[in-house]
Amino acid sequence: MGDYNQIEILLVEDNPHDAEMALRALKKNNLSNKVLVVTDGEEALDFIFARGKFSGRDKDFNHLPKMILLDLKLPKVNGIEVLKEIKSNPETQVIPVIVLTSSQEDKDIVESYKLGVNSYIVKPVDFDKFVEAVRHLGFYWLLLNKQPQL
Amino acid sequence: MGDYNQIEILLVEDNPHDAEMALRALKKNNLSNKVLVVTDGEEALDFIFARGKFSGRDKDFNHLPKMILLDLKLPKVNGIEVLKEIKSNPETQVIPVIVLTSSQEDKDIVESYKLGVNSYIVKPVDFDKFVEAVRHLGFYWLLLNKQPQL
Repeated sequence: MGDYNQIEILLVEDNPHDAEMALRALKKNNLSNKVLVVTDGEEALDFIFARGKFSGRDKDFNHLPKMILLDLKLPKVNGIEVLKEIKSNPETQVIPVIVLTSSQEDKDIVESYKLGVNSYIVKPVDFDKFVEAVRHLGFYWLLLNKQPQL
Repeated sequence: MGDYNQIEILLVEDNPHDAEMALRALKKNNLSNKVLVVTDGEEALDFIFARGKFSGRDKDFNHLPKMILLDLKLPKVNGIEVLKEIKSNPETQVIPVIVLTSSQEDKDIVESYKLGVNSYIVKPVDFDKFVEAVRHLGFYWLLLNKQPQL
């Protein structure tokens, strides 16, 4: 993944099995060529705010990812904190953040909406259903939803 | 539309032609039986906060609409103000609000995201494309997206 400016989907997932399943689902829907997988919340924030190893990345409106698929239970910085930082910053709050988690707890759902999550999806356990969900996610956020100057 | 507690889709649209087109698109996708159309921002807020003629409506988590399709240019109270009120209130911020507008102006898009819109869709002019967009909207927000206790 050489050119970070081409990234349309940022997948934040620390569980290798879940990341692999998501990548397979993206591939099945021809969405896998513009995805970057990061495995903890700190790396996610570094990418989003073009810091650390991602400091060369352009972060103007034309190079924003079109969706961030965000797990909640993450090492270093948890998903709720990542969501909070994205949605409280004027430069990044236009990025659609979709929580993709196994948690169905109302506490997590309410907290996510409170912080401005765009959508909250519970990971389907069945692989075929997961592929189907990713297909809808991709179509909806990459083609139908509108961001500024994209 | 007798029982307001059954409403899953609130359509806020003052243009009769656009409202008719949206209703036809919802009907084509078998989504028309749980929709309420209101024609200005004040009526929208009355429904959402169970005030005025909607004061008998339950507004607990189990009776929240699953999506609000919100036009921006509205009489009485404009769409941006409606969005702001929904997203700044803890009781209603978990309702997905999708701006559905003909405006492609960056100002409107950025302001909507800033206020916590869940998604911003530019109305397709072509009817077939509009029906297709509504199909995706319905599937995504009614079946895939998760709200608390729903």
